[in-house]
Amino acid sequence: MKINLNADMGESFGIYKIGNDDMLLDVIKSANIACGFHAGDPLVIANTIETALAKGVSLGAHPSYPDLHGFGRRSMSLSPKELKASIIYQVGALDGLASSLGSNASHVKPHGALNNDACENAEIAKVVAEAIYAYDRDIILLAPVLSELAKAGLDAGLNVAMEVFADRAYTDEGNLVSRSVPGAVLHDSDECLEHVLRMVEKRGLTSINGKYLPVKFHSICVHGDNAHAVDTALKVRQGLEAHGLNVVKLTDIDL
Amino acid sequence: MKINLNADMGESFGIYKIGNDDMLLDVIKSANIACGFHAGDPLVIANTIETALAKGVSLGAHPSYPDLHGFGRRSMSLSPKELKASIIYQVGALDGLASSLGSNASHVKPHGALNNDACENAEIAKVVAEAIYAYDRDIILLAPVLSELAKAGLDAGLNVAMEVFADRAYTDEGNLVSRSVPGAVLHDSDECLEHVLRMVEKRGLTSINGKYLPVKFHSICVHGDNAHAVDTALKVRQGLEAHGLNVVKLTDIDL
Amino acid sequence: MKINLNADMGESFGIYKIGNDDMLLDVIKSANIACGFHAGDPLVIANTIETALAKGVSLGAHPSYPDLHGFGRRSMSLSPKELKASIIYQVGALDGLASSLGSNASHVKPHGALNNDACENAEIAKVVAEAIYAYDRDIILLAPVLSELAKAGLDAGLNVAMEVFADRAYTDEGNLVSRSVPGAVLHDSDECLEHVLRMVEKRGLTSINGKYLPVKFHSICVHGDNAHAVDTALKVRQGLEAHGLNVVKLTDIDL
Amino acid sequence: MKINLNADMGESFGIYKIGNDDMLLDVIKSANIACGFHAGDPLVIANTIETALAKGVSLGAHPSYPDLHGFGRRSMSLSPKELKASIIYQVGALDGLASSLGSNASHVKPHGALNNDACENAEIAKVVAEAIYAYDRDIILLAPVLSELAKAGLDAGLNVAMEVFADRAYTDEGNLVSRSVPGAVLHDSDECLEHVLRMVEKRGLTSINGKYLPVKFHSICVHGDNAHAVDTALKVRQGLEAHGLNVVKLTDIDL
Repeated sequence: MKINLNADMGESFGIYKIGNDDMLLDVIKSANIACGFHAGDPLVIANTIETALAKGVSLGAHPSYPDLHGFGRRSMSLSPKELKASIIYQVGALDGLASSLGSNASHVKPHGALNNDACENAEIAKVVAEAIYAYDRDIILLAPVLSELAKAGLDAGLNVAMEVFADRAYTDEGNLVSRSVPGAVLHDSDECLEHVLRMVEKRGLTSINGKYLPVKFHSICVHGDNAHAVDTALKVRQGLEAHGLNVVKLTDIDL
Repeated sequence: MKINLNADMGESFGIYKIGNDDMLLDVIKSANIACGFHAGDPLVIANTIETALAKGVSLGAHPSYPDLHGFGRRSMSLSPKELKASIIYQVGALDGLASSLGSNASHVKPHGALNNDACENAEIAKVVAEAIYAYDRDIILLAPVLSELAKAGLDAGLNVAMEVFADRAYTDEGNLVSRSVPGAVLHDSDECLEHVLRMVEKRGLTSINGKYLPVKFHSICVHGDNAHAVDTALKVRQGLEAHGLNVVKLTDIDL
Repeated sequence: MKINLNADMGESFGIYKIGNDDMLLDVIKSANIACGFHAGDPLVIANTIETALAKGVSLGAHPSYPDLHGFGRRSMSLSPKELKASIIYQVGALDGLASSLGSNASHVKPHGALNNDACENAEIAKVVAEAIYAYDRDIILLAPVLSELAKAGLDAGLNVAMEVFADRAYTDEGNLVSRSVPGAVLHDSDECLEHVLRMVEKRGLTSINGKYLPVKFHSICVHGDNAHAVDTALKVRQGLEAHGLNVVKLTDIDL
Repeated sequence: MKINLNADMGESFGIYKIGNDDMLLDVIKSANIACGFHAGDPLVIANTIETALAKGVSLGAHPSYPDLHGFGRRSMSLSPKELKASIIYQVGALDGLASSLGSNASHVKPHGALNNDACENAEIAKVVAEAIYAYDRDIILLAPVLSELAKAGLDAGLNVAMEVFADRAYTDEGNLVSRSVPGAVLHDSDECLEHVLRMVEKRGLTSINGKYLPVKFHSICVHGDNAHAVDTALKVRQGLEAHGLNVVKLTDIDL
């Protein structure tokens, strides 16, 4: 059985460094690379792509609302046409740099507030899906399980890879528990691994209240914000492999 | 005999409008579209592409130094790798939007200070040419006649379209006369047309001092800053056609 | 009887020009000058201040959410402390330039989405008022009649000048009729003047449904987006003067 | 005998953190606080001011060319009027935030490429000095010894505090040795302290070639880029105090 590990990458900007990309690229198999709107700049993107390719990691675009100062975490009101153009601009820029380095963007995962909005709002989800489809109908949309975004991607005719989070608890409805609720974020590496293995074995989510929700998923999202996070990601990968799973690129998953 | 007319386009930004793109797109055959670094934004770019395609105008990327406030007119020091990545980012973004609208970027023309630097500085010219080649070796580089940029493009193996300016006087060396020198810019429509026809007929430049420089060129650059400029562009086009020239897209020129 | 006329100013940016500031500065008595977050840049601000001072117009800061691309018209979520700091930053920058030119910012009027949010949301209104008070308790807050912002300003101990709009219809509750509703914006100069004189004579608003709301106000907001708008502003001024009102700076109004 | 220690501060931006401000503010006595053009944002500035004030550190504005992406390290061509307005804008913004927190900006030190340009180019130095003078003639200009900037400040009638660098070698002419030359930057804490004490005792510079240049100086610049740098700063401070010097705020130095 195959599974993918993905993480956000390339979120440095100019002199400002963030994340532990080099270490994390040894752990994950698919990278969601910032496209310059919430983080990243052309040089950061090019360097991230080069390292990812050297480490056998597949490339994804990680487009955002245009908000460098807020790191793409503030919701913004854009008209459908503007949002669509903004997403295509970013995916094209990232894909262009990938292409110049002998590869290509094989998936798209929206960032931050745009991802949140697209997961909850069917109209925004539709715009995201249409943007990706208009750019290249063969690019994979990486979207959270049970989200409006995943649904919109399937409706649009895209290949959709479903993702779950290694370090986040789920509500009974399958949404992420809000960060303000105690227990929403799993901080312990062993706890994260246990959480992941339970999802794999049960082929579904177990909510924070113990409710079981069957869902199919293809990828697990991990983080690299600090050394601890990278350590957790590594434990998750090793745990998955110890349980006989084959951790592969998104492009090697059967969608 | 075939000739191309090109102009800069899509240089509005958010609420700020600049240029007379709609009118000028009825006159020219190839558009150099701002990519968001000195001007333009995703929505402006998408709208410009749509209008250009509707009017049978071919699309070019018009990349710049990252300087919205200075409109790309200030020279900036970027490392070769950063400059290369910045150009590819912009061309990819523009080409991505073109692709989503059923077309593609068929040429690249650097903007402002980047274009000036690349025309005079062989190292910068090489980086520009290599960036374009790395992105897509089939894209045409649109470069001023006798420039380092044109030379670098040929050296890199690119298809290079040579351009002259309808409204600018040339030095004895074939450079543009500095704007600070009287007579550097031709303000009269008839004078511009005469200037253009002389270059076409003589197959070369006549400098401000009357010196003749034989050069081959494929495209004439016009402007749309105001109604007068658009009027000049139209006169140039009509004058060329009246002299039996076929005004075509850059992609229809034999390079 | 004294009345003030105010308008937004200094909203050009780099090469991008917007508004008819020079003409409008001959009509109004107090200018709300963009501070660089939604529009304006240091040179634009300095030039606007110079012209305003030369024409006897008093200076106000026009702070905004940080959103150049959206012209400050998109609501953004900032923490109270960040919003407060952002407002003080802008007022300080504007006041610094005014001070270097021998004058000072004598009022503050928030821009666009920030103004809308502060008019409807008491918490945001409080942050705006506290920011102004912390910077300089003697600066006048220019706020729409009946708004949360006006209330918060009075609660904070600020001098508050109340404003009405020359070209906008009011609801029965005293809010602006939404622009999407027919009749919300008065396009005819004579209609605007009539609207203004009715408010002056009746010392209150007459809503779009004919309901009368008594309100005290000190200033009338006009626009300069185009020649027609400037013409309307001039008619309003001349009409006010013909009715015996003395059109003065905000600093000459008894609050 | 009194001496000042200064360092650059408040250069974080949004989510991006840089420097060890909290630790360094326990060591230095005057902070050069970024004003948002090369780094810093309103919230970062407000927080930096609060901490500096709590630790008895005096406040300075650290204005830059408008270049967040390049961290103000790229020289840019601005007209004198634009540069002057840009500096006043930044000083006003910083001073406004200081004022809202019960203090004020008592000095100005240009950042990065602007500082370099002002040290070498008399025209740029004059614009910087005039900007500061126009804003507030009582603000101290903090400028490198023997620089055009220091000279321009004195010529303009400003109070000028002269600074030397704890970790940089000097040429025979009293300029900083270019970073590309071996020995230009002192990396060892003890070496830095020795360098500083030699300057204090000899009341002048000893160049990299051993040449002695008598200069009067009031402040020593230290850095906080990493824990090592903070450690060096602390050693320098302790060494100065051990030699009987009184390390004080710039405002307590007799200029």
